[in-house]
This record gives sequence, C-alpha cells and structure tokens, in this order.
Amino acid sequence: MIIIGERINGMFRDIARAIREKDPNPVQEWAKEQEAMGADYLDLNVGPAVDDRVSAMKWLVEAVQEASKLPLCLDSTDYDAIEAGLEVCRNPAMINSVPAIQEKMDRVFAMALKYNTEVIGLAMNEEGIPKNAENRVALAMELVANCDAHGLSLDRLYIDPLVLPCNVGQDHGPEVLETLRQVKLLSDPPPRTILGLSNISQGTKDRELINRTFAVMAMACGLDSAIADVCDQELLAAVATARILLNMDIYCDSYVDVFKSLK
Amino acid sequence: MIIIGERINGMFRDIARAIREKDPNPVQEWAKEQEAMGADYLDLNVGPAVDDRVSAMKWLVEAVQEASKLPLCLDSTDYDAIEAGLEVCRNPAMINSVPAIQEKMDRVFAMALKYNTEVIGLAMNEEGIPKNAENRVALAMELVANCDAHGLSLDRLYIDPLVLPCNVGQDHGPEVLETLRQVKLLSDPPPRTILGLSNISQGTKDRELINRTFAVMAMACGLDSAIADVCDQELLAAVATARILLNMDIYCDSYVDVFKSLK
Repeated sequence: MIIIGERINGMFRDIARAIREKDPNPVQEWAKEQEAMGADYLDLNVGPAVDDRVSAMKWLVEAVQEASKLPLCLDSTDYDAIEAGLEVCRNPAMINSVPAIQEKMDRVFAMALKYNTEVIGLAMNEEGIPKNAENRVALAMELVANCDAHGLSLDRLYIDPLVLPCNVGQDHGPEVLETLRQVKLLSDPPPRTILGLSNISQGTKDRELINRTFAVMAMACGLDSAIADVCDQELLAAVATARILLNMDIYCDSYVDVFKSLK
Repeated sequence: MIIIGERINGMFRDIARAIREKDPNPVQEWAKEQEAMGADYLDLNVGPAVDDRVSAMKWLVEAVQEASKLPLCLDSTDYDAIEAGLEVCRNPAMINSVPAIQEKMDRVFAMALKYNTEVIGLAMNEEGIPKNAENRVALAMELVANCDAHGLSLDRLYIDPLVLPCNVGQDHGPEVLETLRQVKLLSDPPPRTILGLSNISQGTKDRELINRTFAVMAMACGLDSAIADVCDQELLAAVATARILLNMDIYCDSYVDVFKSLK
C-alpha cells in the first residue's frame, strides 16, 4: 500500500507556526521523520489560516525538498497554490484533489498533464458527498471519464470515496467499502483508490484502533493507498499483515520488520 | 459477530488429559472463562487421541453443561460421536461440520433436522479444498442445495470457506475473502458464513496480529461468525471496531467496553 504522510499540514499547530514564521525546521524534521518511517509521498497542506496560499505552498515545497527526495502530494482547494507548488517540484507530484465538478476537473486534469502528475479525484460534487455507494461510484465514473478525455492514463487517477468520522457519519462506512469494490470495475486499467484515513476517527477516543481497523477492511475491498499517520507503528504492522493475507508480499516470520525496512 | 470459543479441544494438552482422566475441572473452567469473555457458543472437540470418541463426546457435553448454559458446537468428523453428544444437549446445538460429500450431507442434514441444530458446511469435498473462490463457491452451492432439499432453513447453514495457515497456503487468503463475498449471493435468505479463524495463523510468529487482521478483513467481506480465541482481548477490540465501522453497532466513545460487556 502506498502511504502518503499526512503530518505536514497547517491544521497542526507546529506546522501552522512554521509557515507563518517561515521557519523551515519543523517542516523539514517531519519530512525526514516520515521518510524514515516509510512514507511513499509527503502530503503538503498549508492549512486554513494562511493569507497568501500561493506563496505559502511554494515556500513549503521548497523547504521540504531541501530535506527529502520523496514525491510530494500538494493538498489544497486553491489551484493557484497547487500550480505554484508544481512549478517548483523537482519530482512528478500528486494533486490533492479534484471533485467531480466540471470546471475544476478541466483545470486539474490539464494541470496534471502539463506537470506530469497524478491526481486524487473526490467522490463529491456541488451537492456534497453522496450517502450511498451507487452515487459515489457515479461521481467516480465522471472523474474517470474526464481523466480519460484529457489523455491522462487512468492508473494515474486515485479515487477517494471520502470517509466521514465514524462518530457522526457512521452509515457512510459500509458505503465507502462498497465504493472501493465497485471503483475497481470502472475501467481497464482501473483507477487506483485512496482514503484520507485519519478522517474516519476524527473526534473519537481510540483513534489508532479505528484507523488501523478501517485500513485493513478497506484493503480487503481494494484500497491501494492512504493519506495516513505513517508514524503509527501499529498501523504499519496491520498494513503489513493485510498485505501478507492478500498474498501481496511473501510470508516470512519477520514480515512486519521486513515491510517497515523496505518502506 | 457470533464468536464460538475454540478452547475446549483435545488438541490442547489440558483438555486431552481431562478427557482421558474424566476430570471435568479444566473443561468446566474453560467453559466458564470463555462464557465470561463473551463467547456465544462453545466448540467441543474431543481431539484426535481418543479411543472411544462416542463416549468421550457424551461425557464432554455433560461436563460442559454443568458449568455453562451456552449453546454448544459439536466438532468431530465422527458423526456417531456428534449424535451421541446431540442426544444429551439441553439446548439446540451446532454441528461442526459437513463437507460437500453426498452421504455425509445426507446424514448430517437429517441429523440437524431431527435435533433442531445449525450446521457448519465446509467448502471441500473428496478432492480436498479447492484453491480458488469459484470452486469453493460451487461446493458452497452444493451445501446450500442439500440443506434446502432436507427442509432446513438456509440461515441455519454456516458456510466455512476454509482458511489455510498463511505461511503455507498464502494464495488461499484472497480466495477465502472472495468466497465470503459470493456466498452471500447464493440464496435468500443467504447462508451465514464462518471461519476457523486461528487456522490462518497456525505456525506463524505473530498469531494474534494475524488473527485479528484477517477477522476484520473477513468481516468487511461478509463474515458472520468465527470459531476463535475469545480470550484474546485485542481480537475482541478489533471485532468491536469493525462492527462500528460496518454500522452494525451504534458508536459511543466506550464502544469496545460496551461490546465486551454485552457479549
């Protein structure tokens, strides 16, 4: 499973302060730590409290690139900020994210082609997040069709069915799992699938237990990747185990250590 | 999820000795402990080393019933032993198990009707356990058809796709998950599904991690019940979490404790 480290996000106070004060240290420490823990990508989100998101994203990309060679996942609803970040990315990146809204898809898929990126497509539109799997899959199909129409290979599209915190949107859980299953039938090659995993446990008491349980349930339904807390050792052990049980890695007694060392 | 406590099995030395010496104490202690931990049924297996399985099963049923009111799951390949046990069962029991072999199905489903039991049907026949989901499901369909032909309600049949230890039969893992999904489409009402969970980790190093990971992955694919180590607290926490995430129980911050207390 591809794990995108979630920690460089202005929702966290240390990152918000670092961005405000243009202090690269906390950002670079988290970049190195997440890379050491086995992150495949680093998510970069300047957070909600920034006045100039364009210059903040550019600064953040440059600061992180001094500390890590990992590919970046530029996370913003402000596409000017994402484009400013892409302009200074040294490696092909990922755009996080685009909903199934026509003008946004037009801009994002064109940008993806120009900058040779991958794209996270959200199963939502102007009306919000559908409750059931059927309508989520319909939106995923719009994303697939638009991705294809723009000439971007479908395996560069990651469909995010969108999890809600299980303490407020509990009925969405099984619908997300069903969406993951059905998305894999939409095209050949199928789109990949992704979740913002930690959302499922927002505001709950046993966050790590909920995160790792949903992660492996989702893997059983076709989940390919997650934006997640890559420093959560038990999450990594659960993911390593699910990969063994899905016959994706060869069993050996020390498979958890092997998984962590190969990440 | 229905959990059938696995511990009263002659494969364990303390139980083998108890059966040999007709000492009810270890058997009754495990009956009480598994009931206290929330077992819904108790599996009873006299083990391989017993000369007279018929009298051993009768003794075991009577010993357990003095300690626990839980329904019993009589576990033997010797149907005379199972019938001797059923004759002294105070509550409706479960027969564990019957493969998709005609003369065995004829005997077991007739016995199930006579003694008002549930039945575990194994996705195997004279040729053994099929490797892929398609052939497992074909055998499940034979079990469903025979169950129905004998007039036993289909929700009294539990299909066991049969897991192999992941260190020797790793390619069976995803096939078992796919079988669980497809079995639910075989009839209306669909048969229930069951696994001998601990088999998946036989001979591995991190048995509990593997057991609880496969349990929740299987629940995401339609698993209804398992013969399992009900004394494994982390397994119970994982199952409780999967039930929340599948919207089967209502979320509250203390849902793990609630699950354990209600079991």
